[in-house]
Amino acid sequence: MTISPLAPKRFPDLPEIGGVTFAATAAGVKYKGRDDVMLAVLAAGTSIAGVFTRSATRAAPVLDCQSKLGGDPSGTAAILVNSGNSNAFTGRNGVESVTAITGAVEAATGVSQSRVFTSSTGVIGEPLPHDRIITKLSELNAQQSGSTIASAAKAIMTTDTFPKGATATVNVGGKPVKIAGIAKGSGMIAPDMATMLVYIFTDAKIGQSDLQTLVSGLNARTFNCITVDSDTSTSDTLIMAATGASGVDVTGDAGFADALHEIMRDLAHQVVRDGEGATKFVAVQVTGAKDDADAHKVALSIANSPLVKTAIAGEDANWGRVVMAVGKSGAAADRDRLSIRFGDITVAESGWRAPDYSEDEASAYMKNAELEIGVDMGIGSGQSTVWTCDLTHGYITINADYRS
Amino acid sequence: MTISPLAPKRFPDLPEIGGVTFAATAAGVKYKGRDDVMLAVLAAGTSIAGVFTRSATRAAPVLDCQSKLGGDPSGTAAILVNSGNSNAFTGRNGVESVTAITGAVEAATGVSQSRVFTSSTGVIGEPLPHDRIITKLSELNAQQSGSTIASAAKAIMTTDTFPKGATATVNVGGKPVKIAGIAKGSGMIAPDMATMLVYIFTDAKIGQSDLQTLVSGLNARTFNCITVDSDTSTSDTLIMAATGASGVDVTGDAGFADALHEIMRDLAHQVVRDGEGATKFVAVQVTGAKDDADAHKVALSIANSPLVKTAIAGEDANWGRVVMAVGKSGAAADRDRLSIRFGDITVAESGWRAPDYSEDEASAYMKNAELEIGVDMGIGSGQSTVWTCDLTHGYITINADYRS
Repeated sequence: MTISPLAPKRFPDLPEIGGVTFAATAAGVKYKGRDDVMLAVLAAGTSIAGVFTRSATRAAPVLDCQSKLGGDPSGTAAILVNSGNSNAFTGRNGVESVTAITGAVEAATGVSQSRVFTSSTGVIGEPLPHDRIITKLSELNAQQSGSTIASAAKAIMTTDTFPKGATATVNVGGKPVKIAGIAKGSGMIAPDMATMLVYIFTDAKIGQSDLQTLVSGLNARTFNCITVDSDTSTSDTLIMAATGASGVDVTGDAGFADALHEIMRDLAHQVVRDGEGATKFVAVQVTGAKDDADAHKVALSIANSPLVKTAIAGEDANWGRVVMAVGKSGAAADRDRLSIRFGDITVAESGWRAPDYSEDEASAYMKNAELEIGVDMGIGSGQSTVWTCDLTHGYITINADYRS
Repeated sequence: MTISPLAPKRFPDLPEIGGVTFAATAAGVKYKGRDDVMLAVLAAGTSIAGVFTRSATRAAPVLDCQSKLGGDPSGTAAILVNSGNSNAFTGRNGVESVTAITGAVEAATGVSQSRVFTSSTGVIGEPLPHDRIITKLSELNAQQSGSTIASAAKAIMTTDTFPKGATATVNVGGKPVKIAGIAKGSGMIAPDMATMLVYIFTDAKIGQSDLQTLVSGLNARTFNCITVDSDTSTSDTLIMAATGASGVDVTGDAGFADALHEIMRDLAHQVVRDGEGATKFVAVQVTGAKDDADAHKVALSIANSPLVKTAIAGEDANWGRVVMAVGKSGAAADRDRLSIRFGDITVAESGWRAPDYSEDEASAYMKNAELEIGVDMGIGSGQSTVWTCDLTHGYITINADYRS
């Protein structure tokens, strides 16, 4: 598979995070000749927060993680993820697989089953051959290392064309706190959330409830603002683990929150950059809406419109389709106060083509790989930014064949 | 352009309808070498009903039609439609074009401007060169004929690959009443309504208000139940004209309502069959939902899902994506009571793959050009059927180039 043309130049150097170790291996769940399972083990006392798909048909591992979030954080914890099979829509067998895996992780690592979080990603509706995973647990436990997060990032990939990572070190009260995150996702990507798995680790010290509030708030401005194809997965999971190993309390620290926000946005963007068949990375920025919720509606309507996305693929400055998408969004709009820009080029204002509009100039802009579509509704102060990609022959090729 | 493989074998023989005449010509609005304007003239006393796009950015001709619907029906009436330019998002110029055209129609035909209904379809955001249309009005008036509805059906086409027509004759109290309809539409198709223009004519006698109620009700079960690409147009228009020339009053007649329903469903299906790039015609039938509104939500979520639509294009019996689309719909769902069938083949039941499921059998079924996807939610008695098509390379090819 060709790497997305929008991919970052390289995978970042992710630092070791005190209190967390990783291992990955090839269990042969579905893929051959590549790692497809990763196990992370977390120090006692680690705070764990999570955000999950809101799908009404969410998968068994998601339901299991949700039920465990608020539990006693004093013991060690573990995260086990497999790719190739999502264990979604697998009825009672799904629950049995989760129970079998988490029980086996407890047996292999000593982590209480109530603190073992699992995710599965891949084909829906096939029974998960969990024995293949369980067989590998003692190996995964024996190979734990603080320096192998990159191999974990690779093991969780499905149709991804590149592994996704981001990191930051932030000073809190003169002491360094480290954050490192990994993610997967490239199709079935839409809020809430995207088809995505995201794991973020920090050595910061912060209580579970504070961490949850912080992560949920930032999620609304990052992973819930991306869309590839408007399709929401049954397995979306973001787990954030704060081990406390640095000894630095970050509760309420703005610098830590900003750094985490940056990492989450970076990972969210990487998911869009790996959107199936994507050749353009597009920021849709809506301002002047009745309120933020309406702005988000308009931004998503544009970002999800097949006609807008195919026009972008064709490098066609077709702002008429943007007008259409605004109109169908359901948000309050006054056609004659609407302005639209592509990058810095105003293409339409006051309900019509801008007087200085140049088709040549706009067409030249559309040849860029990174694009901005700006819409000002002209009726209020609501705003929202959503990131998406174009809709290309590549998306059709990938999805008319791949059984996900 | 290749004719859609899902097209009907031929355009039907549409009968003359007493009280309405047609003419079409080439005004060169945008296309070269083909008719692009049609004028229909309607007898005095014709009742006119309409249904229009709910877009917040609807075009000037739509707003003009809406304002005229309830007016005095005693005089003659006219419908003028052009293709190639939608006169949408054209600011004050849009209103001026409509005023100029309707005024010129009055001058050419004697029909009061207040009874001249116009539609425009094609590119958004370009000024409508209405002088090109106005120049042709005396020719269009001189050539009026009861037998040229087929040429009108061709003149209103844009990316359509075939003209769309349907007809029925129904006996009311022993006397025949005729109905004939034409439509255009193939992309930017989604409720409410689709990117569509539809004109239906009958010689039945029925008051405006009764006709409006009948048409609005049937629209909810026909044109509002189709989707090609989830994109709602700024120009959607359905106009129904009852001339009364047969002298037969159809107010409250069930046979007439059934015949009209059949025609509207037929035309709606033809629009989907001409969906841009379509190779499969798909009926999504949802039953057992909490209520009809929830069933409609689920059906649309499935019918609009890019992942479901690409799987259909790939002839992949990927029912996992149907589960996903149910889950994201926002409708009440119990994963473990959900059943899914492809045609008569039960693929999933009680929240998991059906025990007798055969991938070979399901894959063989997917090779059909006409498919049924059935979902039973298992929690109530709500139901809805939505019709759609697959998402193919053809859609991308058409829309990454065509400026609509």
